[in-house]
Amino acid sequence: MERVSDLGEFGLIGRLTRFFKNDDPSIIRDFGDDAAFVRLGDRLLVLTVDALVEGVHFLGFYPPVSVGRKLAAVNASDAAAKAARPLYALVNLGLPPETPLPYAEGLYEGLAEGARRYGFSVVGGNTTAAPALCLDLSLIAEAKRPVFREVPRPGLSIFVSGTLGDSRAGLELLLEFYEREKPSSFFPSPEDLFEAAGFGDRERFLVKRHLEPVARTDLIPVVGEKAVASMDVSDGLLSDLKKLSPRFAVRLEVSELPLSRELVEFCSERGRDPRLYALLGGEDYELLVASGEDLSPFGFTKIGEVLNEEGPKVVDERGRPLEGEGFDHLIRPR
Amino acid sequence: MERVSDLGEFGLIGRLTRFFKNDDPSIIRDFGDDAAFVRLGDRLLVLTVDALVEGVHFLGFYPPVSVGRKLAAVNASDAAAKAARPLYALVNLGLPPETPLPYAEGLYEGLAEGARRYGFSVVGGNTTAAPALCLDLSLIAEAKRPVFREVPRPGLSIFVSGTLGDSRAGLELLLEFYEREKPSSFFPSPEDLFEAAGFGDRERFLVKRHLEPVARTDLIPVVGEKAVASMDVSDGLLSDLKKLSPRFAVRLEVSELPLSRELVEFCSERGRDPRLYALLGGEDYELLVASGEDLSPFGFTKIGEVLNEEGPKVVDERGRPLEGEGFDHLIRPR
Repeated sequence: MERVSDLGEFGLIGRLTRFFKNDDPSIIRDFGDDAAFVRLGDRLLVLTVDALVEGVHFLGFYPPVSVGRKLAAVNASDAAAKAARPLYALVNLGLPPETPLPYAEGLYEGLAEGARRYGFSVVGGNTTAAPALCLDLSLIAEAKRPVFREVPRPGLSIFVSGTLGDSRAGLELLLEFYEREKPSSFFPSPEDLFEAAGFGDRERFLVKRHLEPVARTDLIPVVGEKAVASMDVSDGLLSDLKKLSPRFAVRLEVSELPLSRELVEFCSERGRDPRLYALLGGEDYELLVASGEDLSPFGFTKIGEVLNEEGPKVVDERGRPLEGEGFDHLIRPR
Repeated sequence: MERVSDLGEFGLIGRLTRFFKNDDPSIIRDFGDDAAFVRLGDRLLVLTVDALVEGVHFLGFYPPVSVGRKLAAVNASDAAAKAARPLYALVNLGLPPETPLPYAEGLYEGLAEGARRYGFSVVGGNTTAAPALCLDLSLIAEAKRPVFREVPRPGLSIFVSGTLGDSRAGLELLLEFYEREKPSSFFPSPEDLFEAAGFGDRERFLVKRHLEPVARTDLIPVVGEKAVASMDVSDGLLSDLKKLSPRFAVRLEVSELPLSRELVEFCSERGRDPRLYALLGGEDYELLVASGEDLSPFGFTKIGEVLNEEGPKVVDERGRPLEGEGFDHLIRPR
């Protein structure tokens, strides 16, 4: 019998969402974007749900307050990508009965902090026993206009906020620490973890980018005014560029990828190419925006252009496809 | 270190929700009810989330289509209890990679059927790997006025819709079948399960009440017009009565509890008292309503009254508290 693992995440989603045939005219967009858009009276609501599961998205030794903050951030990031202000959230928490109470409290403390930071209220929830820790948040946000994920035409410039690849480097540092020390319990705070791991400033920066990513709700006005298409970078830039522009090829200025000093130093010490971290890393939670205007004055870096050529395809400055062997000219991680 | 199991579900919820201090004046009600109420423009939105976890709320051999239908029903039931029309939902699905694809499809097929039945649209979702099957649904509904859970004053009559206790009897039948046959795979449909288990009409009725409860969205107009307080019966009537009326004692007419013919026959064959199933069973998903009017013409049964006496407390017709030894006058299950 076919298993869900045979299809992969996106194949599975395609197979499952076909059961939902929505003909309600108030639904502007349902599946296939970072969030759904529905009209309710004179309001445009943006609805999204995201989950964190122990062993899949985080490990048991992570500070619970960080996991809670991240849950708020990954959901607020979907809203920000749609230029939508987060308003209300519902939280669902599944936890093994033997979970230490301070752990559960840390999760909610972090979530409450995140909610305050991004300006939404957690108004309800559900708590249930479960074989493993799993949390998910459903967020209701409000937008002035629908900003979809897909690039509708060639000729647009592509921008990304912040820096890319840090989160992946931070994850590697966390996993190296885990392999080395096999911590048997959770750390109450990021500071406790950083001290136990002996992380210096550079490592702290990178690990924090993974443990507690920041949703770019500060960029909502820019996205709302200037984006033609927008999404957040969660699976990795290269994969996400193909989702942003499935119909048209994209030329990526690999030399323009925004990199933090910390990532460059981390890679230089390890003999790796930071551009690979930026291209393939994932969980950056920066915004990836296509626009006809110049967004560089607003904290964005221009990284490419939408070509008048069939997609999905990403090529570098010299037209070489960026996939598989196309990476040969970049130094591969050892 | 204290564990979450030391507190129990309600103690835990109390400990965790204190992190959320909502001062947004658009929030009419947050925690401590079947759903949250928020005002958005001229609309009154009702928000709720509920989860089903394998091994906790259902077993692996249950037909996935039934689990999907139940997920829709338990959420729609919360909305119905608040006299709110379900509009939009987000689904979060965590599933082990080795899950058979037809199983995952069955879950979504059942959920889609439930959504159509209760008139809402599943507009988005999230799918993730997880160590065990877990699903949750967040529902946005709309009400004309807020109907809260708590009885505000004595003198009101208490009504319940439908019949009580069937679900518990159905669960026992399912568990007996499981103990007897130890089915190693899931049944594609309820019919397949009923045949394998050799269930006759009576058993089918009871098992179906557990496998695929029906949310009483048909009663939304009655609740909206006539309820002073309302909730659905999910934990069991006795426990839920104390949540409906925490400030005032309730007199319950035990002889008036609405019982199905099927439950009475089931109990009579086993030498049990069906009233205990009705009082303690749980997962009935019928509506429990306090009102100053007579709701018996609308499919409700009057089962008691709110007393001018301190609560939470439930007494029977002769004033005997219904808890612990108070059950001595009812025949206990063997």
